[in-house]
Amino acid sequence: MKRNTNYDNLEQSYLFSTIGKKVNEYTSKNPDKKIIRLGIGDVTKPLCPTVINAMHKAVNEMSVQETFRGYGPEQGYDFLRTAIQNYYKNFSVNLELDEIFISDGAKSDLGNILDLFDKDNTVLVPDPVYPVYVDTNIMAGRKVLFSNANEENGFLPMPNNNTKADLIYLCSPNNPTGAAYDRKQLAEWVKYALDNKAAILFDAAYESFIEDDNIPHSIYEIDGAKDCAIEFCSLSKTAGFTGTRCGYTIVPSSLNKLNKMWLRRQTTKFNGVPYIVQRGAEAVFTHEGQKEIKENINYYKKNAKIISDTLKELGIWHVGGKNSPYIWLKCPNGMKSWEFFDYLLNNAQIVGTPGAGFGKNGEGFFRLTSFGSYENTLEAVERLKKLK
Amino acid sequence: MKRNTNYDNLEQSYLFSTIGKKVNEYTSKNPDKKIIRLGIGDVTKPLCPTVINAMHKAVNEMSVQETFRGYGPEQGYDFLRTAIQNYYKNFSVNLELDEIFISDGAKSDLGNILDLFDKDNTVLVPDPVYPVYVDTNIMAGRKVLFSNANEENGFLPMPNNNTKADLIYLCSPNNPTGAAYDRKQLAEWVKYALDNKAAILFDAAYESFIEDDNIPHSIYEIDGAKDCAIEFCSLSKTAGFTGTRCGYTIVPSSLNKLNKMWLRRQTTKFNGVPYIVQRGAEAVFTHEGQKEIKENINYYKKNAKIISDTLKELGIWHVGGKNSPYIWLKCPNGMKSWEFFDYLLNNAQIVGTPGAGFGKNGEGFFRLTSFGSYENTLEAVERLKKLK
Repeated sequence: MKRNTNYDNLEQSYLFSTIGKKVNEYTSKNPDKKIIRLGIGDVTKPLCPTVINAMHKAVNEMSVQETFRGYGPEQGYDFLRTAIQNYYKNFSVNLELDEIFISDGAKSDLGNILDLFDKDNTVLVPDPVYPVYVDTNIMAGRKVLFSNANEENGFLPMPNNNTKADLIYLCSPNNPTGAAYDRKQLAEWVKYALDNKAAILFDAAYESFIEDDNIPHSIYEIDGAKDCAIEFCSLSKTAGFTGTRCGYTIVPSSLNKLNKMWLRRQTTKFNGVPYIVQRGAEAVFTHEGQKEIKENINYYKKNAKIISDTLKELGIWHVGGKNSPYIWLKCPNGMKSWEFFDYLLNNAQIVGTPGAGFGKNGEGFFRLTSFGSYENTLEAVERLKKLK
Repeated sequence: MKRNTNYDNLEQSYLFSTIGKKVNEYTSKNPDKKIIRLGIGDVTKPLCPTVINAMHKAVNEMSVQETFRGYGPEQGYDFLRTAIQNYYKNFSVNLELDEIFISDGAKSDLGNILDLFDKDNTVLVPDPVYPVYVDTNIMAGRKVLFSNANEENGFLPMPNNNTKADLIYLCSPNNPTGAAYDRKQLAEWVKYALDNKAAILFDAAYESFIEDDNIPHSIYEIDGAKDCAIEFCSLSKTAGFTGTRCGYTIVPSSLNKLNKMWLRRQTTKFNGVPYIVQRGAEAVFTHEGQKEIKENINYYKKNAKIISDTLKELGIWHVGGKNSPYIWLKCPNGMKSWEFFDYLLNNAQIVGTPGAGFGKNGEGFFRLTSFGSYENTLEAVERLKKLK
């Protein structure tokens, strides 16, 4: 038996374990200091009442022979796919039901979608980047090229006609930078993909944080996108589903054969999302559900704004903080990412995430997030101001 | 962009759609006749009370900030892995926690595990077979060999030293035949795998139906198996989780590198099973949970015995019906599978599954299942007896 030796080419990430170690060392030496974590990449608000009620109801259904549900359709129940179909109408995007696939989260499908593509494809990934895009392609032995995200382009790299890519990853609003493409920029990517017969893998996991009208929620708001793009979305950040696991993937039927291939992949290697979870997800898209999840999103966005406003006041360059739960800042005084991490920890007891952990272009940058509590976020920015 | 053209080599299965069509035609012509379905491949009893209570409690936890759970460990929560570790002690199998990976079901992991292996491996699959083994390997472009299961070997093919296989699928108790390997037979497979440096992919999804002492519940009951076998199990048939989705995969740490590779695969392409579902699964392994699920399993097993006893009485050759929810019978009077399907439907209004749908060696055989109600099963065997 031969192993897949591509796995030997994966790099181990020590980003979060190193952060944990440094914080532990600091707290053991300074047990009286209160640490504020602005590095949290996970939601902290509980599930909203409408979702909770729907899941209790579904659990009850599973307890009675007449309403018990066994195997469901691998691509998801129609009740949830219809809810998502209607949700997309908010962006004037019309989808057929069989273009919508319910997933257990964007991460799974972003990895598994690669089953549909030949090994011999050139992959284009922005740097800095969510590590899953790169690692899943290394596992399959594919060549990965990087497009440079940096201060000059506001961490929104644009297509370069000298680069020939077959698979293009875009994440907007972006993780880790919080930067988001506007309509014109996304249209340029769609044109590049169509010109090069490339496929765009569009990660829309943070779309619910968008507030600016010129930032598309879905790539299908752009003409031509249905002929080149697959879209991944998730309820993780939208509705606090990080531990409840539900998302959706859109594979347009106009994409030559890929829609049927994905259906075949899912019916062969997946058995669908739990019925109970799909009922919870359906509740997210009700009137009440939307109202409740927006309260949580606005709570996080308020935190993001407080951080962003403070950075502006302090003259610190950054992107994100709007249309996103993330704030990506340039480390002041030419500090490197880990230098600034130590500086913040030692002088303000704030924990963030060094940008260098997300790729070489992340060096000299730093990520703060808005998933902490309002009170802690307020206290953190007061500490930041005092550092000046 | 180049598609994975291996998908073009997949065969479309029309097994269940053809069955549906034939049944619809019959009922529209004979609206007064009562059809009894003994082809059901899904559980029909609801989730047991202990599981329901655990899930309600978990849903409540998700509604409150203090007990809310976000991202969990991709490989599953320790509370569930510990429960499974203890369950394996019933079979005198000792596992380390980091050898146990919680999955959303055996089907997903049986497909995804192939990520760990080079394309250049020869795969050995029994015929007849659960289609997932073959299709997932065709998707990856691997060469698939078949080992013949037939009347002579009781549908339990044994290793052939003239065949050099790298990846070996075994399913015991088997789907679709219900046949189960005894200790001595499994030991021969383990020896063959070790001699050939092959890996066994052992599908134990039906282990909870085993009642005979000489049938292993886990391949790790066999000496040497930890050096060659990965085991897949599921709560789908054990505890009625077909629509709730939870299983577990054992990758021994003694398997050269594969354990670490699988951890890396899962942390990269999976985000774990919903917290609520993992709490439900944990409840399955409690004293009360075990008592309750065994009542359901015994209900199905009683049905299986009724069918098996009737076939014996009628002198119809079959395997399964014991240690399994499936009964695999030889079509009487030399009938072919679809011929017998039509005969049963027309003369006894019983619907089963033609064996030919599971591979070429299934021709002339037929699958009945025990997932119907006791009353319908009794009525079905009375109808069978009258056919004589």
